[in-house]
Amino acid sequence: MHLGVCYYPEQWPQDQWAGDARRMVELGISRVRIAEFAWGRMEPEPGRYTWAWLDSAIDVLAQAGLKVILGTPTATPPKWLVDLHPEILPVAQNGTRLNFGSRRHYDISSPVYREYCAQIVTAMVRRYGTHPAVIAWQTDNELGCHDTVPSYTGAARERFQDWLAVRYGEVAGLNAAWGNVFWSMEYRSFNEVGLPNLTPTDANPSHWLDFRRFMSSEVASFHALQGALIREGSPGRDLLHNFMGFFTSFDHYELAQTGLDVAAWDSYPLPRTEVLWFDETDKHRWARSGHPDIPAFNHDLYRGVGRGRMWVMEQQVGPVNWAPHNPVPKAGMARLWTWEAFAHGAELVSYFRWRQAPFAQEQMHSGINAPDDRLTAGGYEIGRVAAELADFDRTAVGWTGPAQVAVLFDYPADWMVQIQRHGADFDYQKIVFEWYSCLRAMGLDVDILPVSADLTGYRLVLAPTLPVVPESLVAQIKAGDAHWLFGPRTGSKTPDFAIPATLPPGPLQSVLALRVAQSESLRPSLRPRVTLDGVEGQGLCWRDHVEAGEGVEVEARFDDGVPALVRSGRVRLATACFDPVLLRAVIARSVREAGIDVVSLPDGVRLRRLGRVCFAFNYGDEVWHAAVPDGTRFLLGGAELGAAEVAAWVETS
Amino acid sequence: MHLGVCYYPEQWPQDQWAGDARRMVELGISRVRIAEFAWGRMEPEPGRYTWAWLDSAIDVLAQAGLKVILGTPTATPPKWLVDLHPEILPVAQNGTRLNFGSRRHYDISSPVYREYCAQIVTAMVRRYGTHPAVIAWQTDNELGCHDTVPSYTGAARERFQDWLAVRYGEVAGLNAAWGNVFWSMEYRSFNEVGLPNLTPTDANPSHWLDFRRFMSSEVASFHALQGALIREGSPGRDLLHNFMGFFTSFDHYELAQTGLDVAAWDSYPLPRTEVLWFDETDKHRWARSGHPDIPAFNHDLYRGVGRGRMWVMEQQVGPVNWAPHNPVPKAGMARLWTWEAFAHGAELVSYFRWRQAPFAQEQMHSGINAPDDRLTAGGYEIGRVAAELADFDRTAVGWTGPAQVAVLFDYPADWMVQIQRHGADFDYQKIVFEWYSCLRAMGLDVDILPVSADLTGYRLVLAPTLPVVPESLVAQIKAGDAHWLFGPRTGSKTPDFAIPATLPPGPLQSVLALRVAQSESLRPSLRPRVTLDGVEGQGLCWRDHVEAGEGVEVEARFDDGVPALVRSGRVRLATACFDPVLLRAVIARSVREAGIDVVSLPDGVRLRRLGRVCFAFNYGDEVWHAAVPDGTRFLLGGAELGAAEVAAWVETS
Amino acid sequence: MHLGVCYYPEQWPQDQWAGDARRMVELGISRVRIAEFAWGRMEPEPGRYTWAWLDSAIDVLAQAGLKVILGTPTATPPKWLVDLHPEILPVAQNGTRLNFGSRRHYDISSPVYREYCAQIVTAMVRRYGTHPAVIAWQTDNELGCHDTVPSYTGAARERFQDWLAVRYGEVAGLNAAWGNVFWSMEYRSFNEVGLPNLTPTDANPSHWLDFRRFMSSEVASFHALQGALIREGSPGRDLLHNFMGFFTSFDHYELAQTGLDVAAWDSYPLPRTEVLWFDETDKHRWARSGHPDIPAFNHDLYRGVGRGRMWVMEQQVGPVNWAPHNPVPKAGMARLWTWEAFAHGAELVSYFRWRQAPFAQEQMHSGINAPDDRLTAGGYEIGRVAAELADFDRTAVGWTGPAQVAVLFDYPADWMVQIQRHGADFDYQKIVFEWYSCLRAMGLDVDILPVSADLTGYRLVLAPTLPVVPESLVAQIKAGDAHWLFGPRTGSKTPDFAIPATLPPGPLQSVLALRVAQSESLRPSLRPRVTLDGVEGQGLCWRDHVEAGEGVEVEARFDDGVPALVRSGRVRLATACFDPVLLRAVIARSVREAGIDVVSLPDGVRLRRLGRVCFAFNYGDEVWHAAVPDGTRFLLGGAELGAAEVAAWVETS
Repeated sequence: MHLGVCYYPEQWPQDQWAGDARRMVELGISRVRIAEFAWGRMEPEPGRYTWAWLDSAIDVLAQAGLKVILGTPTATPPKWLVDLHPEILPVAQNGTRLNFGSRRHYDISSPVYREYCAQIVTAMVRRYGTHPAVIAWQTDNELGCHDTVPSYTGAARERFQDWLAVRYGEVAGLNAAWGNVFWSMEYRSFNEVGLPNLTPTDANPSHWLDFRRFMSSEVASFHALQGALIREGSPGRDLLHNFMGFFTSFDHYELAQTGLDVAAWDSYPLPRTEVLWFDETDKHRWARSGHPDIPAFNHDLYRGVGRGRMWVMEQQVGPVNWAPHNPVPKAGMARLWTWEAFAHGAELVSYFRWRQAPFAQEQMHSGINAPDDRLTAGGYEIGRVAAELADFDRTAVGWTGPAQVAVLFDYPADWMVQIQRHGADFDYQKIVFEWYSCLRAMGLDVDILPVSADLTGYRLVLAPTLPVVPESLVAQIKAGDAHWLFGPRTGSKTPDFAIPATLPPGPLQSVLALRVAQSESLRPSLRPRVTLDGVEGQGLCWRDHVEAGEGVEVEARFDDGVPALVRSGRVRLATACFDPVLLRAVIARSVREAGIDVVSLPDGVRLRRLGRVCFAFNYGDEVWHAAVPDGTRFLLGGAELGAAEVAAWVETS
Repeated sequence: MHLGVCYYPEQWPQDQWAGDARRMVELGISRVRIAEFAWGRMEPEPGRYTWAWLDSAIDVLAQAGLKVILGTPTATPPKWLVDLHPEILPVAQNGTRLNFGSRRHYDISSPVYREYCAQIVTAMVRRYGTHPAVIAWQTDNELGCHDTVPSYTGAARERFQDWLAVRYGEVAGLNAAWGNVFWSMEYRSFNEVGLPNLTPTDANPSHWLDFRRFMSSEVASFHALQGALIREGSPGRDLLHNFMGFFTSFDHYELAQTGLDVAAWDSYPLPRTEVLWFDETDKHRWARSGHPDIPAFNHDLYRGVGRGRMWVMEQQVGPVNWAPHNPVPKAGMARLWTWEAFAHGAELVSYFRWRQAPFAQEQMHSGINAPDDRLTAGGYEIGRVAAELADFDRTAVGWTGPAQVAVLFDYPADWMVQIQRHGADFDYQKIVFEWYSCLRAMGLDVDILPVSADLTGYRLVLAPTLPVVPESLVAQIKAGDAHWLFGPRTGSKTPDFAIPATLPPGPLQSVLALRVAQSESLRPSLRPRVTLDGVEGQGLCWRDHVEAGEGVEVEARFDDGVPALVRSGRVRLATACFDPVLLRAVIARSVREAGIDVVSLPDGVRLRRLGRVCFAFNYGDEVWHAAVPDGTRFLLGGAELGAAEVAAWVETS
Repeated sequence: MHLGVCYYPEQWPQDQWAGDARRMVELGISRVRIAEFAWGRMEPEPGRYTWAWLDSAIDVLAQAGLKVILGTPTATPPKWLVDLHPEILPVAQNGTRLNFGSRRHYDISSPVYREYCAQIVTAMVRRYGTHPAVIAWQTDNELGCHDTVPSYTGAARERFQDWLAVRYGEVAGLNAAWGNVFWSMEYRSFNEVGLPNLTPTDANPSHWLDFRRFMSSEVASFHALQGALIREGSPGRDLLHNFMGFFTSFDHYELAQTGLDVAAWDSYPLPRTEVLWFDETDKHRWARSGHPDIPAFNHDLYRGVGRGRMWVMEQQVGPVNWAPHNPVPKAGMARLWTWEAFAHGAELVSYFRWRQAPFAQEQMHSGINAPDDRLTAGGYEIGRVAAELADFDRTAVGWTGPAQVAVLFDYPADWMVQIQRHGADFDYQKIVFEWYSCLRAMGLDVDILPVSADLTGYRLVLAPTLPVVPESLVAQIKAGDAHWLFGPRTGSKTPDFAIPATLPPGPLQSVLALRVAQSESLRPSLRPRVTLDGVEGQGLCWRDHVEAGEGVEVEARFDDGVPALVRSGRVRLATACFDPVLLRAVIARSVREAGIDVVSLPDGVRLRRLGRVCFAFNYGDEVWHAAVPDGTRFLLGGAELGAAEVAAWVETS
């Protein structure tokens, strides 16, 4: 449980650094991330390195007792590099080549750019790889941000062709897998294959899916290229990347497999609430706190990406600059978000940023200090957290193994839905998030995991939407004794993006004998009704019309007779998206059957256990009373939680 | 009254073909369309033809007793052709050249592409032109689909210049016709003229209109090029094209004049309802049946395009893939749509498609069979129709001449409105459709015809909006005894896209002595009121401020005194768009005066006469009772029509 | 008080000109603007001039007694010029080069185009510079219209680099001013600097601001280039440009400083009402009259731009062509708008246009005459105004010095807000307009002035939003005795687009000792409440969280305690945007303290004094009674004003 901060010594006069470092330590901060945008200052001209300033900066921080996380600066290639090699600039989906002048102006598939990245990373590692204060490396910054992945360059096309050649061996295999016969789209060789953008109508979804897979592998290999150099030259340090929330342009599990010690992510609850799929009511309600499940969802997701190790690399402290509207957080939220991150297993919570920059693109992004160097309202809260941390009894805390419930998150599932929404408002992440929220509102801890995970030990596994069901997952269903709940579109596709020969749910049919005879997407006004466990609800957005086979019980039907919920043994399938109340009833049924205890929480209250300690967080405005036994030992707060308050107590059972 | 199906043998293993053919025949299908996307399989490399598979496919179908409609594959040029001649790729209005990877990736103005098209069509015709099973040829597929017409290439520019030179002779004529003096837009030669896209503000509307005319002629000549080759090499076969519904990128009457035996069209009632101009209430209400006038409007339109001969080439059977939302049709609709097509004069109803493809772009488009080869819900309905057809007494049916009412549909009218909407929500097709709907709700049969048609014999002719009134039409008004009802913007333009010298309604002034002193477009909130025949209604969207001259009676005025409805003898003009209730009152007045009997139908019920047989169709959910004499002979159903039901009886009067 | 008209002799047969001129004079018109789109007729081929027609046109007008305003035709380069030099075509922000075919198809930074402009202007001036009928010259037409400024060409980039070199001297200065260290954006030389478009995410706001400044200076120098030639060759004539309403792409004050005798502007009240920020209620309510403050705001603004001299160069007479909806104005509005312009100091009101063109882009734009040469409804109103003018006692009218209230309008403020809205709906012009409207609803005359103006003599100065507060303004605050009211975001930026070192309001802190600790943008649903002077209102859109320092009184707080209105002596600051009722209460407080008398007017009624004459205008539909003393002498109308009526009386106090 460390506190950290993002700091940019190059942006401030050198004589200010020592004072900054001292004040960081005084505030309770022990980790500092630096350098990830400073390529231009490290290498102001091709091949001429200027390390003096960075040497000093690291030394000043180290001398104050701070540990350093070094970022590689490859998100910001300098102008001289762009002028030497304009071909490294990315190309947007509409075919336009982008310009220098902000950041991420590079084509991740450019061999030339990769070569320059290797050089700068090598140089940094050589210089600082064994510096005692350097404890970790971050590759690049927020890979894929600003829609720079996928990139549609000639270099991407060439590498895509090579990738396809490896995947398919013979072009006939590609033609068959994609069904290219459909519209005379067959290729005679891999080098005839182009990118799927700018076609008169939709390109082949299989073409898109392979391109998305390829681009995901490009991101992974871009990280891996840097990671290998860092591992070699900076042994014993943590290798990490700072991912974003709700970002699926590449498969994070795939990147993690190429070498990653910690999954770090950047937590901005307020702007996410503003830009995600929430309706006006929710956007208003949570405008100053963030939706209560936004941080937790990502903590639980990235804890899985990092196979247990998760950091918050950038934590919002005050108002930011990048949403359509950027309100000031409610008093107490910076503290709440910090404790909540720790409760979900974060080893480090690092704030963005030490001091608000008065210049350039992010000048309206607040930090711990205002540009005039006074602590902000959020900054004071950090100080409070630091004081609480110093007193916190960590002996009660410890990792106690997996949760009882797992939710499967699958990046390719999101790609497939994006490639072929079929219903305009079908949103994969929204659906997974809604299922996750239901569990959290029952007071449950949740692990978010990939389909490839070993799910042994979970009592209940939820897959809100899973187009491709791997045989290995079916094997886990059969082998274990967990209960399973699947959602609509499950098993709807083969890995080649085709409909399974036996129709959906494909491989799942061996444990759930049914046939999805047809599927439909529903306009918002079309809401077939269904009743379950006394709850009257509605189907939304999508329906799979199921023909139940042997051993499959129809637990609920829509008013027109179409099955809404079916079950075979421990495996249950919701055939449609449901309104929140009905969804909660469906999930509650599975939770109950799995023998999991629940509590009923108000909308704004969330619980999370860490070892024997139970944390409570109140995002709402109403006071909440925790129903704990008399004599419960509180490590933080008390049984009565006001707005934005946190409590933590030792569970005795 | 034949049933047909769209089939793609190249997409399935050859050993499946015979079984497919047998099952088609068993289901009652007698016609099969094939080959229209199979260029890549016919000519996998430049000049190397591979006919064996297609030979087999045709033979297998023929041996089962099926007749074959062959499509030319020019909607899908293979990759080798695009790589040999990248200049055949189309250019979008924003100047972007489009890519290979879907379909329709060709510039219709490319001389190179036309040459390749001629070669493949020639080869096909040589091979199959006299095959006894081949009864018809379809050129290309859905010409203009996916906004590929107009195309903005250099080839288009050159051919446009040539077209202008023919039209105007001297460039001075063009300058005068377009009014190019306006903004120093005068040209010194035809080869100075460019395309009208990407101008800082609107290009000259006359420039646009001539470009739209030119592009329409390009489509026509593209069809004609293929048609001539087919006529020559495949004598006695029907030549057709499968048009789309509500599609006006080119003048279908013009194409038909270049040589067309049958106007075939592709009927997708549900997605059309979702994407057209209907308000939320109507989109919801008709989401599973389609709006009751959508198929009929197109049947009546295309019957006119085909001068009496009309086919439905692709009929929706179940949920499709291409609308924002794609629901399952209400049970019974596939049958209803089929019978309705026959009632409107279709010789063939052909379903899209025999079996849902599990791969590629249209994998979510259902068909008669699911990908696992079982009949779909819609497929069973086709079987029912086939059985009913077998028993149907066709002796009662026969063509009995034109309807009593004609509605004029003018493609250039739509172009002119699009080029210069003046009011953002003025939609030509919407207005024509609303007028048509009023007539249909009165139980009337309607013929939809071009302004050039001989209108002798009609009691009433409606022209909902007709910017250019040809003198020939005025002559027909004077010569006949029909009643006429015109709508707003009538006579508002010359053929050069100028305001007539005597102001609108231009040539119509010789039968309706009035002057449109000024016109206005109205925001939705501006709704001047008017009362007519006891109906209180509102003007919408547009008003022509009319000064009535000699012999012109003002039948109704808006509350601010502006005339709403004027009449001179048999000619009436509505000066504005009206809300539905008022519009119906206006049309009812004209119908009444024309001496035409009407019935009042519920929103969802429609009638159609074919010879002595009257068909009734119930799109709604309420039961409807047909008021027929006792003892009426029913060929289908009975006097009581439930949801999605069809009835047909022999009229005795 | 002259009436004028826009006339295009080249668009009509020569034998029509004399009649047109005669009818103009008969109608009461004395000024005619011509020639501004006629380059193609003046120079039909490179270097070949054809003056005969224009000689005749000017002579015919002159002989009828009309005075001529000549427009330079540089908004419409002919096709031959575009073909000779395609590089003069502008490039849009998305990187697309635009085409010939409408108007304004030129890159204002093109040295080649500037050379050709100099040639045609020189030729015109040589020909007509001393013609006795020519009394004024207009440069180009509506500079910047159709988003043609900024232009993103290579020429613009080169000139931008030169401009930056002049501004900064050394590139290090630019890097420091822009904070380019932020994302490794530092340049090594000025010729490395590109344009700020097409970056993956936001370009540096300082980059944008300098580019906007540069482009503004390009517009100014483009005007100045022509102006110098005109001044030299046509001495004693007025030099002017016809600006647009609510148009801020360049700094009009800057252009005026390069040489401008009169600020002319083009007044289109109805389409402006349709396209500006008004809500549906207001758009509907004022659809046929225009919002009552739209013309006045621009009159007052342009009177400032022209340092007292203002013309309306194009006045809407009837329905126009370019808004989404184009209704017919309410009867009387053309007259009302004319008188209102005179009341606000216009020397000339010139109508667009003499006769509606039946051809080309603006054929749906009405004028004084219909295309069939009959007066339109608006045309008759012009005749009425002319008659009233002839009788009008001008002796009572005269300039009587500045108003009591000034509102500051700052073009760079608008650019800065656009570059960094921070809140999606923060609109600089909307806010200024709303403050202006409050003053006008109190019956006050207002001067709109730049921040550089000498504000001596004003009792109250309002700056609704002023990101950069110049020291000179602070000096004026200290030196004078005026009251000041500032709005949110005041002093929020340095001229380099950075946050002031002492935080906002920066330099204003010397008269208002406070610190804006943080700022927030608010979604429309977030509306903190505040009560002031018995009015309960809401904050909207933006809040500056103020920490009040010495001598600063918090006059009102939001319900969460954040200060809403603060004051120090004569200087007051509103920390947020307010709803209209609250805003009026705040402004009323400042007006009251400044000792200014007010009246309370209905929404649609506005007053304006010209010398001793008070004019009243009724935009609404309700009758309004002016509370004037018995015996008041009316120059126009009377004390009772119906819809669209005008009154003018001599004030006796």
